[in-house]
Amino acid sequence: MNTKYKKHLFKPYFLLPILILICSNGLAQNTLISEMEELKWEKVMPGIWKASFGKMGLNPMDYANKPKVDAIKALGDAPFPFAQDASRSLLTPNRASVRLPLSETEQIYGLGLEFEGINRRSEVYSLKVDHYGGIKGYTHAPVPFYISSEGYGVLINSSKRVKVHVGVGNRKDSALPERIDRTTGKNWPARPLSDAVEASVEGDGMEIYVFAGSTTLEVVQRYNLFFGGGVIPPKWGLGFWHRMHTASSDADVLKEIQDFEDKGFPLDVIGLEPGWQSFAYPCSFDWDSTRFPNPENFVQTLNQKGIKVNLWENPYVAPVSTMYKDISPFTGSHTVWLGEVPDYTIPEAQQVLLKHHQKNHLSIGVSGYKFDEVDGYDVWLWPDHATFPSGNDAVEIRQLYGMMMMDMFDRHFKEQNQRTYNLIRSAYIGASNHNFVLYSDHYDHEGYLTALANSSLSGLLWTPEIRSADSAEEWIRRFQTVSFSPLMMLNAWSSGKKPWSFPEVTDLVRNTIELRMKLLPYLYTAFYEYNQKGIPPFRAMVLESGFDTRETLAGGELDDAKNPYAEQKRLEVTDQYMMGPSILVAPVFTGQKERTVVLPEGNWFDFYTGEYAGNGETISIKTKLEEIPLFVKDGGIIPMLSTLDKDNPDQPLEVRLYGSKENAYLLYNDDGVSYDYERGEFSLIELKTTRDREGQLGGISKTLKSHKSSYGSIVWRWMTVPQ
Amino acid sequence: MNTKYKKHLFKPYFLLPILILICSNGLAQNTLISEMEELKWEKVMPGIWKASFGKMGLNPMDYANKPKVDAIKALGDAPFPFAQDASRSLLTPNRASVRLPLSETEQIYGLGLEFEGINRRSEVYSLKVDHYGGIKGYTHAPVPFYISSEGYGVLINSSKRVKVHVGVGNRKDSALPERIDRTTGKNWPARPLSDAVEASVEGDGMEIYVFAGSTTLEVVQRYNLFFGGGVIPPKWGLGFWHRMHTASSDADVLKEIQDFEDKGFPLDVIGLEPGWQSFAYPCSFDWDSTRFPNPENFVQTLNQKGIKVNLWENPYVAPVSTMYKDISPFTGSHTVWLGEVPDYTIPEAQQVLLKHHQKNHLSIGVSGYKFDEVDGYDVWLWPDHATFPSGNDAVEIRQLYGMMMMDMFDRHFKEQNQRTYNLIRSAYIGASNHNFVLYSDHYDHEGYLTALANSSLSGLLWTPEIRSADSAEEWIRRFQTVSFSPLMMLNAWSSGKKPWSFPEVTDLVRNTIELRMKLLPYLYTAFYEYNQKGIPPFRAMVLESGFDTRETLAGGELDDAKNPYAEQKRLEVTDQYMMGPSILVAPVFTGQKERTVVLPEGNWFDFYTGEYAGNGETISIKTKLEEIPLFVKDGGIIPMLSTLDKDNPDQPLEVRLYGSKENAYLLYNDDGVSYDYERGEFSLIELKTTRDREGQLGGISKTLKSHKSSYGSIVWRWMTVPQ
Repeated sequence: MNTKYKKHLFKPYFLLPILILICSNGLAQNTLISEMEELKWEKVMPGIWKASFGKMGLNPMDYANKPKVDAIKALGDAPFPFAQDASRSLLTPNRASVRLPLSETEQIYGLGLEFEGINRRSEVYSLKVDHYGGIKGYTHAPVPFYISSEGYGVLINSSKRVKVHVGVGNRKDSALPERIDRTTGKNWPARPLSDAVEASVEGDGMEIYVFAGSTTLEVVQRYNLFFGGGVIPPKWGLGFWHRMHTASSDADVLKEIQDFEDKGFPLDVIGLEPGWQSFAYPCSFDWDSTRFPNPENFVQTLNQKGIKVNLWENPYVAPVSTMYKDISPFTGSHTVWLGEVPDYTIPEAQQVLLKHHQKNHLSIGVSGYKFDEVDGYDVWLWPDHATFPSGNDAVEIRQLYGMMMMDMFDRHFKEQNQRTYNLIRSAYIGASNHNFVLYSDHYDHEGYLTALANSSLSGLLWTPEIRSADSAEEWIRRFQTVSFSPLMMLNAWSSGKKPWSFPEVTDLVRNTIELRMKLLPYLYTAFYEYNQKGIPPFRAMVLESGFDTRETLAGGELDDAKNPYAEQKRLEVTDQYMMGPSILVAPVFTGQKERTVVLPEGNWFDFYTGEYAGNGETISIKTKLEEIPLFVKDGGIIPMLSTLDKDNPDQPLEVRLYGSKENAYLLYNDDGVSYDYERGEFSLIELKTTRDREGQLGGISKTLKSHKSSYGSIVWRWMTVPQ
Repeated sequence: MNTKYKKHLFKPYFLLPILILICSNGLAQNTLISEMEELKWEKVMPGIWKASFGKMGLNPMDYANKPKVDAIKALGDAPFPFAQDASRSLLTPNRASVRLPLSETEQIYGLGLEFEGINRRSEVYSLKVDHYGGIKGYTHAPVPFYISSEGYGVLINSSKRVKVHVGVGNRKDSALPERIDRTTGKNWPARPLSDAVEASVEGDGMEIYVFAGSTTLEVVQRYNLFFGGGVIPPKWGLGFWHRMHTASSDADVLKEIQDFEDKGFPLDVIGLEPGWQSFAYPCSFDWDSTRFPNPENFVQTLNQKGIKVNLWENPYVAPVSTMYKDISPFTGSHTVWLGEVPDYTIPEAQQVLLKHHQKNHLSIGVSGYKFDEVDGYDVWLWPDHATFPSGNDAVEIRQLYGMMMMDMFDRHFKEQNQRTYNLIRSAYIGASNHNFVLYSDHYDHEGYLTALANSSLSGLLWTPEIRSADSAEEWIRRFQTVSFSPLMMLNAWSSGKKPWSFPEVTDLVRNTIELRMKLLPYLYTAFYEYNQKGIPPFRAMVLESGFDTRETLAGGELDDAKNPYAEQKRLEVTDQYMMGPSILVAPVFTGQKERTVVLPEGNWFDFYTGEYAGNGETISIKTKLEEIPLFVKDGGIIPMLSTLDKDNPDQPLEVRLYGSKENAYLLYNDDGVSYDYERGEFSLIELKTTRDREGQLGGISKTLKSHKSSYGSIVWRWMTVPQ
């Protein structure tokens, strides 16, 4: 395959026909589909298959958790979802590639934390852990897992950067669409439809997993369960998070907490930014003795108030750090912000970090971390040609860095039977069972919402955190969105903003936070479903049955300056998503006086009024500044806290009921802090609506599994007049 | 180097100190600078050195021309420009990398056709042939050659995508700048200054060339001369080009030509877009018999009117092409726009193309081509994992495709002793001696100007072609810029625009075209200097002695939404450039009522009035719609045609003189169409200004080498009152 031709070898034209005859046999070495190796699929679990070829580098699965085998079995078996003999592989000197079939109408979703679009067809993704921006696939969590609208998913298991051609790039011996002359034909396509997904890595091989599913959701469930199912955060993790300005001292924090109390704002977690450290960028990981002279006392004081402490860090070690000497033998060739880069593929390096952090932070009550800049642009991070003491590849280490951080801390916390909830800026394959939520410096409200939807397609959690706003309207609109996300946080590290920084909307901000807090029983149960069944608590609409993607192509007029290839733009519904089994969230952006909402099939009702909203249709609603639009599915059963009294162990519930359909709902609860639930320490209450003989709807609650962590009294609230 | 560690190997903390002791020796395998291989430099010519390590793939230099050895010798010898022992290389399993020293104040220019900025320091470039856009280094001509402000250049000779870290990314054992605590310190840098340029490829080795120079210009000269010096276009190539709307027929073209005549607009080349072909996208390369029933007659008719014909093509072959059967055995695994991709690393494939084109186009008088889409985004071109019959790497073939096209056609034309001038959308290393000018779909006037400056730093020619405009003002402003560029073209392929499409500026457009045409003697001579001495006819200001880059850093305020890393923006002079030895061009953008111009040291004069403008300073000028601001260096001698009479073989000259400095200028001429000049068939006239005994300046012309292609009478015009 490596023959190289020098030019000028042949000149006389008259020899050409003969030469072609001779050479065309000798030269036709470009590989036809039929000549590619057929992938050999091996069933690993019901509905999950694996194929592999060549050699792997680091295995991403070493940093993900183990499968929940019983839950996968409970989903049942399924046939292999496409023609097995149509899946092929090829190894060339520098590259391993794979080809998987794609039908004409099939749509593809997933590929990680993307801020634009849901449908990935007709695009090329260069999946690289990077800060978001630049080319498609450069993002915080570029997960090489895609989901087909036809009900299966494909995971390319590799720590290399996977390049995925999603239905674009036709092989000459594949089924080619009709060619159209651009000058005289109509609708010449700049991206002709192809019949395959092709993916490749610069490396010597890869593993490929296929996940079956009768629906897109079932595919996602199998994927998540394969990595241990979703995480259940501690309850405090679902409360309100406030990150202090970076230069804050202990006194500043205490004053801020007092302000929260005075103004009647809930507060569950205080985040400290770089300034808690004696040196940061690069990091010392040691407390700054001027701003935090007595860390233990400080953290304990907060914990006694029911407030957790979360510490910002990036991984890059300053020589002044007390752990520098121990970690330095395990760091790579290049620095990042002049700090050394630990090679956490080496267990001893992990132990240095854990030992230091246990002693200095965790043993005094710190609840977790925000691991920043484990992603980052090329100008910040180590180059691809860096070397590391383990001998592992710098590109692979970069792709897995976030996963390594999550994995080691998750194990550490679990060993202490303590749940945690943290922030991190990169993730990769199989992250659903890690106690971490992604965030980004990219600060676009619409992109944040799209990311929220997309994260559910790749086993990720994402927070559209608030940092600042240009107006009171933007402030409340962003607060409403973050209140309906996996982690409700004001990250005021640089702005120093407070929830009440825009007085004209302070009450509205408090209301939206409180609404989120009251929904805790519903949300916490949704995470339980994430854990047990792999159902994401926040979900893209394409995972919802009866949802019409309403995708259209627009534009496409030839314009020599702005659109020389006459490409059409795909219009998609990226601004709504599901929370838990029944609630559709349709946030509003600054300036939006009205918006459309695409309701899946079935009757839908306004969350606030219980009024009928529509069925399998696109509705247009007028927005209200005080409300994030929420719609509830027919039969929706929404358990909410009646009050926000943290200290009451038996909180009374209000259970809201929507529509006229009989339904059942399993309400989960546990101690909210430990892993005891894995040993059966939790409660389950069945909430059920049934019709009596007169056809009248009634509510019944039944304790299926009792535990001290249950709820108090239940008040049923019929939001829609029962029929 | 390939040891991989499984996690969970060690858990007991108490063993840790011992383990560190054991492992830190065994593990410290990340490579220190001192452990990297020292590059062995071999002198290849005066002021040019080469080092290499590992194995090369395709050699880019196989598609560039041979050195002009005598001209390089004439530049004299020079010492090796930096500490030889500071240049190091490293081979790791997937990657070859190199490290070259960089001083604290050194600035770096070049790296190909970039549309933003001139100074490349503190950035990472992923040099990939691509349509422009996305990440830094993705561009039509990502030349891995950089020039230091300290007077040397470095070329990474590789057909792989070279990733270059320009003074960013510090090794832990390099000279690190002081660390600053971000919370308490001032001016914490998001990109700490590093002491090296590091570059790498995914491959097994590379060659590195160093070019010395006492100035940045001399570095560029050596680089260009190493590849045969610059091209001298045929004279018609420097005239006016008009590309027809793609659906035009022969009759449409003849009518358009008549319109040009009627409206008094010069016209030298007609470009035909895809529609000249019987099928395009993919291409047939055969004439369309409905729009061009008699191609030979058509082309001859135009040639008789003194108008050349240039044909648009992309390389992707349609099955309906008459060359399909012959080329198909030499095409790669994947199609582009459903056309097959010839593997032109195979000489026979080149011969199929040349034979077809000779027969169908060149033999009937076609003057050249516009080779489109030899660059292209990943969604259009073949994937990195494509295979080709030569066995050469798909990534390398993509990087070199434009060079292969240029090289084969250049040789073909030269064999027929016919000069040509063409357009192409990608280039790479050593393109200066190819008869091709780059262009782009990117249509940003400011970016076009920056590209014009940058192209001179990498052996490239670039045209800021006009396609359309949103206003008459934009129309004339773009026309003024393109009139002062290597190729003056209206590319109306989709807009169908004519030079007179904005009637209110028609006269101004004609004036600017005519001014360019009158400057032909000056411009043509500048190309001769390009050819003989490697001096680019259009040059970035950083190649001009006495130019102060006036570079400043601006902004840098921390903003959690817009600038979370408090990065400063580099403000540079990217909107002016030199044309020939004496003219500074400072184009005006739409809406600019005034602009600043940075004048290098020495006296400068207004081109139009001869008035003194300034000396080594930044001046502010009020713009005039009818003028592109031009400034002439003290002593400037500008030969211009007195009339625009193509048919007059002895055109009279007006020689404009500026300032008060004595000077000499060597005016070049030849037949304008053949390579006979290489055999001495040209004229040289010395134009000289000297002071007589009274100190009065006078002009003297002296024929140093006579040839029939000389000029007629000379009129001296003293633009500045002689002193």
